Order: sequence, then structure tokens, then C-alpha cells
Amino acid sequence: MAEKKPKRIVVIGGSAAGPKAAARARRLDQEAEITIVQKDTELSMASCGYPYYVGGFFDDRQQLVCTPTGVVRDPQFFMKTKGIRALTGTEATAIDRKAHTVSCRNLASGETTTLPYDKLILATGARPKMPPIPGVDLAGVVTLHSIADADALRKIRDEKLVSHAVVVGGGLIGIETCEALQLAGISITVVEMLPQILTFLDWQLAKLLEGHVRSKAADVITDVSVAAFLGSDGKLEAVKLSNGAELPCELAVIAIGVRPNSALARAAGLAIGELGGVTVDEHLRTSDPDIYAAGDCIEVTNRITGRKVHAPYGDLANLQGRVAGENAALGNRAVFPGTIQTGICKVFDYSAGSTGLSETRARELGYTNIETAISAGLDKPPYMGGKFLVSKMVADRSSGRILGYQCVGPGDVSRQIGQAAMAILGKLTVDDVVNADLPYAPPFSLAIDNFIATAQILENKMKGRMKGISAMEVKERVNRGEKLCILDVRGPDEYEAMRLGIGEKLIPLGALRGRLAELPRESCKEIICFCKISLRGYEAARFLEAQGYPDVKVMEGGILAWPYPREK
Amino acid sequence: MAEKKPKRIVVIGGSAAGPKAAARARRLDQEAEITIVQKDTELSMASCGYPYYVGGFFDDRQQLVCTPTGVVRDPQFFMKTKGIRALTGTEATAIDRKAHTVSCRNLASGETTTLPYDKLILATGARPKMPPIPGVDLAGVVTLHSIADADALRKIRDEKLVSHAVVVGGGLIGIETCEALQLAGISITVVEMLPQILTFLDWQLAKLLEGHVRSKAADVITDVSVAAFLGSDGKLEAVKLSNGAELPCELAVIAIGVRPNSALARAAGLAIGELGGVTVDEHLRTSDPDIYAAGDCIEVTNRITGRKVHAPYGDLANLQGRVAGENAALGNRAVFPGTIQTGICKVFDYSAGSTGLSETRARELGYTNIETAISAGLDKPPYMGGKFLVSKMVADRSSGRILGYQCVGPGDVSRQIGQAAMAILGKLTVDDVVNADLPYAPPFSLAIDNFIATAQILENKMKGRMKGISAMEVKERVNRGEKLCILDVRGPDEYEAMRLGIGEKLIPLGALRGRLAELPRESCKEIICFCKISLRGYEAARFLEAQGYPDVKVMEGGILAWPYPREK
Repeated sequence: MAEKKPKRIVVIGGSAAGPKAAARARRLDQEAEITIVQKDTELSMASCGYPYYVGGFFDDRQQLVCTPTGVVRDPQFFMKTKGIRALTGTEATAIDRKAHTVSCRNLASGETTTLPYDKLILATGARPKMPPIPGVDLAGVVTLHSIADADALRKIRDEKLVSHAVVVGGGLIGIETCEALQLAGISITVVEMLPQILTFLDWQLAKLLEGHVRSKAADVITDVSVAAFLGSDGKLEAVKLSNGAELPCELAVIAIGVRPNSALARAAGLAIGELGGVTVDEHLRTSDPDIYAAGDCIEVTNRITGRKVHAPYGDLANLQGRVAGENAALGNRAVFPGTIQTGICKVFDYSAGSTGLSETRARELGYTNIETAISAGLDKPPYMGGKFLVSKMVADRSSGRILGYQCVGPGDVSRQIGQAAMAILGKLTVDDVVNADLPYAPPFSLAIDNFIATAQILENKMKGRMKGISAMEVKERVNRGEKLCILDVRGPDEYEAMRLGIGEKLIPLGALRGRLAELPRESCKEIICFCKISLRGYEAARFLEAQGYPDVKVMEGGILAWPYPREK
Repeated sequence: MAEKKPKRIVVIGGSAAGPKAAARARRLDQEAEITIVQKDTELSMASCGYPYYVGGFFDDRQQLVCTPTGVVRDPQFFMKTKGIRALTGTEATAIDRKAHTVSCRNLASGETTTLPYDKLILATGARPKMPPIPGVDLAGVVTLHSIADADALRKIRDEKLVSHAVVVGGGLIGIETCEALQLAGISITVVEMLPQILTFLDWQLAKLLEGHVRSKAADVITDVSVAAFLGSDGKLEAVKLSNGAELPCELAVIAIGVRPNSALARAAGLAIGELGGVTVDEHLRTSDPDIYAAGDCIEVTNRITGRKVHAPYGDLANLQGRVAGENAALGNRAVFPGTIQTGICKVFDYSAGSTGLSETRARELGYTNIETAISAGLDKPPYMGGKFLVSKMVADRSSGRILGYQCVGPGDVSRQIGQAAMAILGKLTVDDVVNADLPYAPPFSLAIDNFIATAQILENKMKGRMKGISAMEVKERVNRGEKLCILDVRGPDEYEAMRLGIGEKLIPLGALRGRLAELPRESCKEIICFCKISLRGYEAARFLEAQGYPDVKVMEGGILAWPYPREK
């Protein structure tokens, strides 16, 4: 009997999905010949950690390229511990699908080689989008994508080379970079073309974060794009905005998103999706049955909408690498079911997270029969140092199914988003969450967790027990000069300490029964109630409705969710 | 037309479920006459906060009885803000179901009254179990159940009245009390009758906590009960154990669990369950359609097993109060679906949580076709200060459905348990969790979250890709003097810093390929691999299996999950 020839598995890409795929393939097939082709000199870089290295959260650069026990993940490590050959500093230049080979070129020596494969895994990642505007090539215009980028920005921090910087783009990377540079003592302006930063959030929650960023003396400018980078002697001196303003700076970090690296796949004739990512099926197989793809270079299915999306998240890259590695080794057994686009971000002392669809995204996609609720509250009891959270839940009105959840604030956002992600994966409804059995003890949470409280508010709205109104609608109507009956039902001390100043009347909830005369029925056809978080506001609304006031609304999330400046 | 008479709703009990039921009923029926009958002088006490008040996490006692904005929840507050009458210091002595009345007695004046009701809600709570042993009435033998108990223990802390104390019972309250008293500078011994503390955990995870408690100079003695409380002049001087030992102490806190307060319901002829709690249906209606019950006095359905359980958790009391209040006000619309017995507990610098069934509990209930996995790892990257977690997942082998999940350690246990609780509520399988889309960024988590990593290990075991062996089995076999081939595959530095010392051989994973001769096939029919967390252990096992070793096992969770003392 002829000996079985070992399977040859070639992986192109050595950052996240690639090494994970190679390692998984090795665990499932000890005989296979596995080769990673990696353009960079490093392997398995913790690229999501770059902003924290730049920001000085840690100083030991080795930690970006080490195992948790401190061993550098270099080719020797891969060979010794995993029996995987890693060719670093080597570019894959072409795939010959017929011959089943990959052409490679050593970037240092220029030497070329041809690697035969039985199964090929593409993990070519993504690259930063660059705006097609003048001056983009000036020294000082950079990105934070590669470990070399991180090194350069860290050097700027350590040597205090820059005093003013502009971050172009208010997405995840832009905001993380903003924090890193601000912590490095650099004066920062974030410029965002859209009306808000962090578009995985709805506008109102994003504005709360924007306010927090400003409180850290980092400026944010929205609704404006960059017209040009200005400089002399090849060096950046200012960013010119589309509104004509110029921001003097020595550094501009471009963070307007990434684009799948699919040129190699495209050149090999593999199917490419509308978003520019490699097309894969649920086994992460490309249009060629012997080629898989994983990580930031592919398009995946959004599990809620069924549509293809580009979701360049490090955790998904790892999960996908594991699936591609298994399927390359054993055949198409493992399935990657897709994404619900869960994301989270540290923003100075706040965090911001989202899972599933935001209201904006849902409406863009044509979901019309949806209901939303905003809730504000603490993450744990005040006596245990509770910090506040503002959450928003989006649900389908007819099925009750939760479509999305967002949460921002100084509190424990991460647990809220983790819980919500599992709820969405489990296709749970608002009713299911209303009585969810979550871990409660005062060091960790409130007796009614914010996630449950949000669902309870949404339930009340869906059952017609509460009419909500958004801060934006209130503000707009106030701005239009409408004479509204706006009722703050907090206590006088609270009012003295903090208030909106939009013409609201203060009647504390406890005094409301006795002071109805101050709300004449003729002029108070519509009443808008609120308090700090709008729980008392809701109680006031229930009471006023029962008193015969025809239209009583609750301003959702109360003062904590108010995204505009306050009088006090 | 005759005016509709307002509905009279009487709530017996003013701690958690009662006030919540009353408040919810008020929000849904502004006309109802709502009365709370409360034996204590306080209302809506944050009783889960007592251990933290005693332990000095905060000093302002008012915070236990205030709203988040600092308003005391007294009868005036309830009347003014909610239109709810609260009779404090008043005991409900009897229910006349035929007459629809509750007899009450004012504990101060002795005055009796009779309250008529249309709907009655029982929220009579639970009371601490007391061991039927000599000396239990001595001064110094206390519980931590009422706010008066908390006051007394806080006084002991503030005035340094006690130097040695014994906590009887190693459950949630016992362990929280142990921490509180230890922080008060008191020398503590926890005595637990069972072989472990915190029985919502399986033995191995409980032992890891026990070790941590001991590291805080609080002793833990398991497998022993209290025989008597010894004293003179009516004052406690020592606790005598069933093994004859005597522990000198001036204080003993009894925390061996609670029993539903169902005497009033029983006397009224309402159905009582086998566990002593009031029997309710899914609408929280007792055997009398006009009487509801909620909180610690009832039995509820475990949603996994379908069996009735007594689950005296503060969060469930609030959820149940909301359901009972809605149904009393509007009829039986709301459903309380039951519990999965999610719990969490702070244990000094560790946390411990559980949701669903532990392996022990599952086996007790006759689940035989189950698989488990233990996983150890960090909660976030080392460079962001990650702390370790040890998790255990229990799943049904045929359906793959997750039945339970536990997690302990210094890391972020709360998010893990919250995620797992939602996964169990969503009836998710191990496969579903393997590719779950959770929130990832370095300040919050690893790219592959511990919950997902645990599911991946369980998947590998269920698919026959990994043979696990527990630390207990290894230890037992070592103790029996079996000559085992135990392989530690970490690096020499790691071995120098920390090691088990059970006769293991050190061959670093990276050297294994070249040192197979040290594992002669004749004597190494069975090999047990491990590392710090047993990921490298797993890789070694896969390699050795492929080399033809017939029986290679991985010691699950590695050194981090080893529940016994180590050599180093």
C-alpha cells in the first residue's frame, strides 16, 4: 500500500486569521505540510493593541508579538511548537489555480519561489483607505495599521516630537488613536465627514461620547471633510477642511476605514463581492473549492439581515481562521455562521459598544416596523461606586425580536454588550429579556440590570404604556420656538445642581399630586416629562394620563441621555 | 352609571418583591388603593448590600434605604411619589380568604386592623435557617439577614468589639460575610458541613476559591458541622465542631441558608410546595386566584430541569414583583418564566459565578449523557493587565445544548456569567457559542473570549479530538501510587517559577519533537499532558497521538485549575 502523501496547506497572511488557520489545521492534521507566507517581518501581531502601545498603556513592545508566556511568535517558534513553516518578509505575488501553486518573492533578497498547495487559505487582511486629496504623501500624514505605524507613533510620543495632530475619521480606530495621542500629551482634533463619530451607534449616543471626548480637551469636528494636507519641504503643516478652515498640525493620522486586500484573489479569478471582499460560502470556501479565505479580506453574512458585510474585527478573524483551518485540513465540516457586527471601544473614561443593528442602520435597510427604547441608569448600586450607562434597544414590533443594542458611558458597557450579543444570537425577544435571569450581586450589577431595564421600557412602549419622545425631537421643537409643556420631576436640589434650561417647569414627582393646577389643561394638551433617567418621568406620565391629560410623553433616558449642552 | 370602585391591592412584605409589585401595580392602575404591610420599620432595604456595609465598602447607612438620588424610601416617600400607603412596623397576622381581608397588628401599639383586598400579593420573604444545636441562643450567635443584623455587625466593626469569629456555612452569604468581617480586622474561620464552599460551583472550582480565601488569612474548614456553641454568662466563647475541635470566638454568624416565610400562606390554606415555599403558577398566582406571591417566599420553576426550586435571589424578587404587580392590577397577562439559578459572588479579589446546572447538580438530577470542559485563560490581553479566569461548561451530549457554566478567578467573571446566562436562556448549543460574535477590544477581552474558548474545548472533546482528564483524577491516581507518565510542556523558566511536583516530566512543547525518546512507548501507554492553561498541553497531545501513542490525555485547565497545593 502506498503511503498517503501529506496534505500541503499554504496560508497567505500571518497576522490573525492566517496563523490561527495554520495552528488549527496542524492540530487536526499532524501530517500536513503547513506553510505561512507573510509579507511583514512579524507574525501574529496583536494589532488591536497598537493604540494602547502608542498611548502608553504598556511599554514593552515585545508584548505585541509574544505569547502570553513571553515567547516571541517568530518562525522558529512556529516551527518548534507547531511544526509550521513561516516565511516572513515574503510576498505572495500570484496564485496559479490550475497548477495549484503560489508564487512568492522574498522582499529582502528578491528571490522567488513557488509553493505547491493542496489547500490554500487566503488571509491577506485589509489596508487603510486613503483619501484621494492633495498632500496625502507629505511626511507626517500616517495611518495606524501596521506595527511599523505603531512604532512610528510611539516614537513621536516618547520623544515628544509633535504638539498638534489631526485624526481624520471618527470610527473605532480614529477614536482609539485620538485617545492614544491625547494621552501622549498631543493636542488633538478629530475630523469626521459624517454628522457623528462611531457610526455603529445612533446619533444620540454618539453625541454623548463626543461630549466626553471634548471634556478631555480633544476637539471633535463633524460634518466636514478634509480638502487637503498642506505643507512645505514635503512636511505636513496643516490640514485644510472642506469648510475652508485650516488646522495647523505636524501629524495627521488617517483612519477612515479599511478596504479588503483582495487583489491577489481577484487576479487569480476568484469571485469578489460588491464590497471588494473575497466571496466565501459558509465553510469559508472561495469560488475555488481548494481555496479558503478568512479574516479582513472577506465578506461575511450579517446574521440578522442576511446581507454581505465587510466586518474587519480581530475576534472574527480568529474565529474564521479556526473554521478555515479545520476545513482545509478535514474537508468542509466547520461552518462560520456570520456576524452580528458586535463592536466595542474604549473612549477615555467611557466605553461604547454595539451589537446587531442600530436604528439608523435598520431604517437604511428598510426595517420600518421597529420600536426603540433609550434607557439610562447605573451599572451597579451607588454605594458600590456605580457608574452610569445609556443604552438603546431596537426590536421588531411584530415578532418582538431584538435587532440591536447599543450602550455607552463610564459604566461596565462590556458586560451589557456581551449579554445583548448572546441574546441576539439566541433570537430572543424583548419579552424574553424582560425576565432574564442575570448574575446579580452589588459589586457587579443592579438588581434589575440595565439590559433588562431597557427591555422593560421597550415592553412598556410596545404595549402602549409609555409614549416616548427623543431628546432630538424635543430640542428641535424648542429650537423652532414651539411653546411646549416640559416637566422636570426631580427634586429642587437636583435641579439646582444640573438642569437642561429649555423652558422646563420643575414640579418634583412627590409634589405633583398637589400642584396639578400649575398644569392647566388648556395649555398642557401635550406634556413632556423627564427626570435624571426618566423613571420618575415615567411615573409622572402614568399619573398625568390618569388625570385626563390627553398626550403625555416621556423624554427617554432623561438628562443623562441629553446629547446637547445643558444650562447647568 | 355607577362609578367603578377602585381595586384594593394589599401587598404583604416591604423589602424587594413587595414594593416592586406595589409600584408596578400603581403604574398600571392609577386608581387602585394600594397598601404595603411591612413588619420592619424600614422599606425597600438594599439587603444584598448588607455585607458591603458591614465590610466598610461604604459608610453611609442611609444608602441602604435611599433612592439613587438620596431620598429615604419611607412611608411618606411611597405616598407622595407613588400614592402607595405603607404600614411599617405592622405584622400581617392572618388572611381571611373568604372575607378577602388581612388582619394586621401594629407592633409598637399592639393595635389591630383589618384590611380588605380585591387582590393580595404575598412577598413575605425568607428567614435564616438556624441549626438545632445547643447554645444557639447565646449572645454572639447572630445572622446577617435583617438591617438590624447589619447594624449590629457594623457596630462590631466600628468599635472593634471582636477579634475572633466563626462563620457557619460557606454559601453566598457566608462567604460575603467572611470577607466583610475579615476586612473589619477580625480573624475568621468559615465552617462548612459539605466537602466544599459555594455549592453552586463544582468541587474543583470551589477549591480554587477556598485557596484564595485562605490566602487572605481567613480559614476554611469543610466536611465538618457545628456540634454546639459554647459560652458562659449567656455569652459565646467558642464553637465546638463535630470532630471535637473547639474554635474560640466571640462571634458566630450563622449562614446555612434561608427558608421561605410561608406560615401565613399555609395558615390561610394556600398550597405550599415540597420545599416549603408558596406554590405559584406562571402568573405567580397562588392556589387562590385572588392571591399572588413573589420573592423569597415562593418556589419557582427551573427552566432547564422543569423542577420547582427555591431561588432566593434579589434580582428574581424584583422581576417577580413586577409580574405579580402587573397581574394583580390588570389580570393575568404577565408571565414569570422561571429561573436558571444564575448567581455571582465577590470573594476578596476573586469573583465566582454560575448559571444553569453544575456538573454535580446535573448528575444528581439524573443527567447522564453530559460532557464538560474546564478552561483557564485571561479575561483580556496581558499587556492590558489581564487577569485569569477558570471556567467550566456543561452540555448535553446529544443535543449539544449548554446546560450550565461556571467561572471563578480574579478576572471579569461577571461578563462571562452574563453572556452564559443569555446563551442558556436562548437554548444555544456548544456549536453556537464556538463562533459567537462577542464584543472584542483589548481593554475588555481577548480576541477569543474565555466563554468561546471554553466552548471550543468542549467541542473538541465532544468530537473526540481531545481526551480530558480532571485534576482530581490525576491527583487520586498519584495518591494511589500509580506510576503515571505526566508531561508538563511549559518552558524551563515557567517550571522554575511554579510547578505541581506530582512526578511530572518537563519537556517544553517546542522540544517535544526532538525528545520523544524520553517517552518510551512501553512505559508511556498513557500520557497526561498539561501546561499553564493546557492549550500547549492540547497541542502536545495532538502531536503525541499522531506519533502513535495510544492514550494521550489533557489535564483540563492546567496548573491554573489545579485545586491542590503545589510544590512551587
